[in-house]
Amino acid sequence: MIYLDNAATTYPKPPQVTAAVQQAMVRFGANPGRAGHQMSLATAAEVFRAREEAAVLFGAPGPACIAFVMNCTQALNMVIKGAVKPGGHVVTSCLEHNAVMRPLEALREKGVITYTEAQVVPGDSDATLEAFRGALQENTCLCVCTQASNVWGVRLPVERIAALCHVYQVPVCVDCAQSAGVVPISMAESGIDYLCAPGHKGLYGPMGTGVLAALDGTKLDTIFEGGTGTSSESLEQPAEMPERFESGTVNVPGILGLRAGIAFVRRRTPEQIYRHESELVCSLYDRLKASGRVTLYTPRPEMPNFVPLLSFNIPGKGCEEVAAALDHRGFAVRAGLHCAPRAHAFYGTLGCGTVRVCPSAFTTKAQMNAFAAAVLQLAEKQLFVRAANSFAEK
Amino acid sequence: MIYLDNAATTYPKPPQVTAAVQQAMVRFGANPGRAGHQMSLATAAEVFRAREEAAVLFGAPGPACIAFVMNCTQALNMVIKGAVKPGGHVVTSCLEHNAVMRPLEALREKGVITYTEAQVVPGDSDATLEAFRGALQENTCLCVCTQASNVWGVRLPVERIAALCHVYQVPVCVDCAQSAGVVPISMAESGIDYLCAPGHKGLYGPMGTGVLAALDGTKLDTIFEGGTGTSSESLEQPAEMPERFESGTVNVPGILGLRAGIAFVRRRTPEQIYRHESELVCSLYDRLKASGRVTLYTPRPEMPNFVPLLSFNIPGKGCEEVAAALDHRGFAVRAGLHCAPRAHAFYGTLGCGTVRVCPSAFTTKAQMNAFAAAVLQLAEKQLFVRAANSFAEK
Repeated sequence: MIYLDNAATTYPKPPQVTAAVQQAMVRFGANPGRAGHQMSLATAAEVFRAREEAAVLFGAPGPACIAFVMNCTQALNMVIKGAVKPGGHVVTSCLEHNAVMRPLEALREKGVITYTEAQVVPGDSDATLEAFRGALQENTCLCVCTQASNVWGVRLPVERIAALCHVYQVPVCVDCAQSAGVVPISMAESGIDYLCAPGHKGLYGPMGTGVLAALDGTKLDTIFEGGTGTSSESLEQPAEMPERFESGTVNVPGILGLRAGIAFVRRRTPEQIYRHESELVCSLYDRLKASGRVTLYTPRPEMPNFVPLLSFNIPGKGCEEVAAALDHRGFAVRAGLHCAPRAHAFYGTLGCGTVRVCPSAFTTKAQMNAFAAAVLQLAEKQLFVRAANSFAEK
Repeated sequence: MIYLDNAATTYPKPPQVTAAVQQAMVRFGANPGRAGHQMSLATAAEVFRAREEAAVLFGAPGPACIAFVMNCTQALNMVIKGAVKPGGHVVTSCLEHNAVMRPLEALREKGVITYTEAQVVPGDSDATLEAFRGALQENTCLCVCTQASNVWGVRLPVERIAALCHVYQVPVCVDCAQSAGVVPISMAESGIDYLCAPGHKGLYGPMGTGVLAALDGTKLDTIFEGGTGTSSESLEQPAEMPERFESGTVNVPGILGLRAGIAFVRRRTPEQIYRHESELVCSLYDRLKASGRVTLYTPRPEMPNFVPLLSFNIPGKGCEEVAAALDHRGFAVRAGLHCAPRAHAFYGTLGCGTVRVCPSAFTTKAQMNAFAAAVLQLAEKQLFVRAANSFAEK
């Protein structure tokens, strides 16, 4: 199988990630921060090193800024619901995943907030920025947006959006679901207040891991409270990061695997991974475009305007059918709406969905060529089917 | 090292749990429920089998009643905050962990709810039940309590509490943090509405796993929403279990490890594990009691009134000091308040904490004997220290 569903989760993981998970199960099996015995302390030290690794990658001021959660969705919910005030307003973009839209919509339905979707103009940062400026209101209490669309790869100028929002004292949360590990980002330099990232995509950690990085977590209310192993006598949730956002036992095997994943990314460097994957996606784009038989929606997905993934359709054939045919030929891709109906509405594909392909650091040029050939073969076959159908109708 | 901190997390895990986690990393690496390709479907099928395994263990009507979350704390927050209504009242017990108390206190502080702690009478189910009856109010919208205290092992008659609450149409949530895998429970038979359990304690799964089992999850509001891989076109969170409570990517390696852990428990049977561990704890209790040099707080912790764990102190020596001395001798235990200040207040140990010891299915009689000898040696040494101090003072 040639796995090209890396936007859902990266596969395979680097061998050192699997080894770290294994080692966590066998050697670091005590609950960290819960006792003073040697294995508990050793486990806590390992988790701390994972925090350091994540803090360096995201340019966070220190390891205490990093809380480990179950996935990016959880981190986004914690920020959105922790930051908004009743009667407040939230600015977001028109390209968001349901991990952002469903929490916003739930809050809107309950009458807690209103929100505005700023219209992104792909490739035109100035116009996008103007849209965000226009969406800001006097009662805006949060701006939350993706760094890159999970359907189209379109990047948003999040550093400029953050600078704009800070003029109006609006905190900014960035959803790095498709960009973490690929697009360099620095919280300290950009002033981005909250960064949410999955551990299992571009950071190459195991599924079940996510990162909530906060410049100042004490400003957020909590949606989970519980035992933290600290200030146990108090019935009040501690104010301190990261305990404030880590109630209950943390995912030690996942976190230690994630640490190995981030170390892998830092060694290769996000810049190099970005370049490698972008070249693969652009070469695929060029071949599909040249054939004239595949529907493409975006401009050529070059860096730095796009992260390396591509959505397409074969005219006359449903995206699920195309994905099934590709699966049959040994290629794993994801078809449908990718949990992002607003993003699909943007390019007019809400009714039909798309086939999405996304390489990883391990994908080779030969694999991408084989994939392109398989898509073109399907498209050609479809052309005959349509010709035959049209002939039969006559 | 002899590990006796199994109430924090069990260690070691059965080899088949570690193997299942490993296999998940290598063979079931696609995102389940997110695509139609073979590895995604195979992974989803494995996760479904884990749901089946958990449903059988807890006597839940079916696998759809089982949602996998990050830990028991998260499950408790989801139930508590999903079930309460503004102006509502919650009944709980006086022995709860901060995983219950901190969410309740956070809601109380915000003016959303009030709550009452029913006084448990250890060993007297009738009196405990009366206390719960007395705590019920007209606006009570939830009863949440532990099945067994994580500090004292004291069991609550949760089936009888559920029957009582159902007379008044009050849903019941049981915190099985210290009982899951040890005390048999059947949701279907007892009518317990919500059951929360950690995956990494008595179920022998990896840290980072928890179970929220709900007879009817559609009755609960959600505290986080996001992509579920279902009804993607809708900005509203799906009503269906388990997707309703599983937003974002689930912890596949953890869940498959948990499945192997539950299978291990079911093969040994909770009854047998319960008996084995209770015998160990009772023999320890008897030796410490007989010495007259160790402070014990509860009656002899026999089944079925107690789950197998024991809290104690050595007079004149701080619990942290005792735990450190035991660690030095190769025994891992946990000292302090165990994130349960209300439970400590119950036996008057809020100011001093206790040393807590908890065996697992793997703990042997020889290990427990060695532990008892080490504690008694420390207690004897302490006796000399006190005698010397008292002599010096004269």
